Amino acid sequence: MNTSQLLEQIERKKSFLCIGLDTDLDKIPPHLLEEPDPIFAFNKAIIDATHHACVAYKPNTAFYEAYGMKGWAALSKTIEYLNTSYPEIFTIADAKRGDIGNTATRYAQAFFKDLSFDAVTVAPYMGRDSVEPFLRFEDRFTILLALTSNPGAFDFQTRMSDGQELYKRVLETALTYEHSDRLMFVIGATKAEYLKEVRKIVPDHFLLVPGVGAQGGSLEEVCRFGMTDRVGLLVNSSRKILYASQGADFARAAAMEAETLQKAMEEELRKRRSSQAS
Amino acid sequence: MNTSQLLEQIERKKSFLCIGLDTDLDKIPPHLLEEPDPIFAFNKAIIDATHHACVAYKPNTAFYEAYGMKGWAALSKTIEYLNTSYPEIFTIADAKRGDIGNTATRYAQAFFKDLSFDAVTVAPYMGRDSVEPFLRFEDRFTILLALTSNPGAFDFQTRMSDGQELYKRVLETALTYEHSDRLMFVIGATKAEYLKEVRKIVPDHFLLVPGVGAQGGSLEEVCRFGMTDRVGLLVNSSRKILYASQGADFARAAAMEAETLQKAMEEELRKRRSSQAS
Repeated sequence: MNTSQLLEQIERKKSFLCIGLDTDLDKIPPHLLEEPDPIFAFNKAIIDATHHACVAYKPNTAFYEAYGMKGWAALSKTIEYLNTSYPEIFTIADAKRGDIGNTATRYAQAFFKDLSFDAVTVAPYMGRDSVEPFLRFEDRFTILLALTSNPGAFDFQTRMSDGQELYKRVLETALTYEHSDRLMFVIGATKAEYLKEVRKIVPDHFLLVPGVGAQGGSLEEVCRFGMTDRVGLLVNSSRKILYASQGADFARAAAMEAETLQKAMEEELRKRRSSQAS
Repeated sequence: MNTSQLLEQIERKKSFLCIGLDTDLDKIPPHLLEEPDPIFAFNKAIIDATHHACVAYKPNTAFYEAYGMKGWAALSKTIEYLNTSYPEIFTIADAKRGDIGNTATRYAQAFFKDLSFDAVTVAPYMGRDSVEPFLRFEDRFTILLALTSNPGAFDFQTRMSDGQELYKRVLETALTYEHSDRLMFVIGATKAEYLKEVRKIVPDHFLLVPGVGAQGGSLEEVCRFGMTDRVGLLVNSSRKILYASQGADFARAAAMEAETLQKAMEEELRKRRSSQAS
């Protein structure tokens, strides 16, 4: 998928919602546990119920690896279902991989070719040769961790690195990587005020923003500081949508949560348009 | 496994060699491709031929994920084979994972419980709550990336972070994490002179040292700067051993390479003992 196709979908659905498929067998409706593949059954129901309100799905690979071979089978089936039934959807493997050059190439193959995701999240710690193998894939996106939404983000990311905070150095350095136009960046919503700083360095790149909802970030603030003329935001919500209900109505409840977020996003997009017009 | 058991194995085998199982179907002997599971067939042959000369095996998960479900099956079979046939061996999942708290818990379960590795490599970028879930497992080790052996290591790891290089800040900060005695650290052999600095901060922890051999690091230098009274080193070699020959004699050729390294390590251990005695 390219940026134009993603933007077209955003305009059509009036949404920049990404739904995190962090599927946890302890939290899904108990009746699904009788299905041959409960993880996939849950994901499929959530996707069918919410795809009109979101533009992206983001399975976090940890939740699948935790179930071993069965988990990987469920992940494969989920991405295949998305690519077959809803090819317009932007798909993100939230894998946070990072390894030396020849190994990074393996990860890129795994996620972009074998599983055929549109994007994968990558950790920056190992630098250029751990990121560029992902960037070689055309019409695929590498979403680099910059400023994450967890408490540990303050251990290293916000510390001064040769005169500027490490997350800013990551952004600046990544712009020098080959095919840096294929980058997006993870910027946590719990630190919305930082988005202003981020936009000084990467005015146009898409940002993947976790932490709205369960982790306490505000959509309105994220949009005020992070939205660009070409939107430039994918805002993720996971648990609040997936586990809106544990009853037989779980898919309907998830759809209602997703629609609530979509409506709020529609309002933000409208505000942006009126400010552009004025 | 605990540190005493690891040390006992090192003393008995006179080796602190870790063999990286970075198994690549393009590089293994072609006749193995006719096996039902070529990756496992290769790994089993390598393990059977080299286990007397090494104390640890380290499959890099990227090489398995790149082959999808078949790759994960081969990884599962490999760790099961190691745990069953050679329970004294220290096993490392080179996964370089790193994610927020509840997600990190999933990864820890995947590698320590489901697959039952003794250790897993973890990336530090996301800080405390991305590391501590791994440290909660008793008799398991979390091997944190500090200074890696690739060119990209200089992008961020060696930059000054609030007055000291980032890799040193990672070492110091990690020592404040709960159960920090269950940590080991990745320090690349291509930067052996840095080991002196590392030992000022972590005088006793084990270091996993990649980059000896194919990447150009010197065993003698690594030992001079990094070895402690209780050894404190696991030195990894991957390609040089695995792909010593592509013929029918590949396992024998791998054993010879491993034995050459073991002999060199035996000499380093002897030098350490005589310097302790004097």
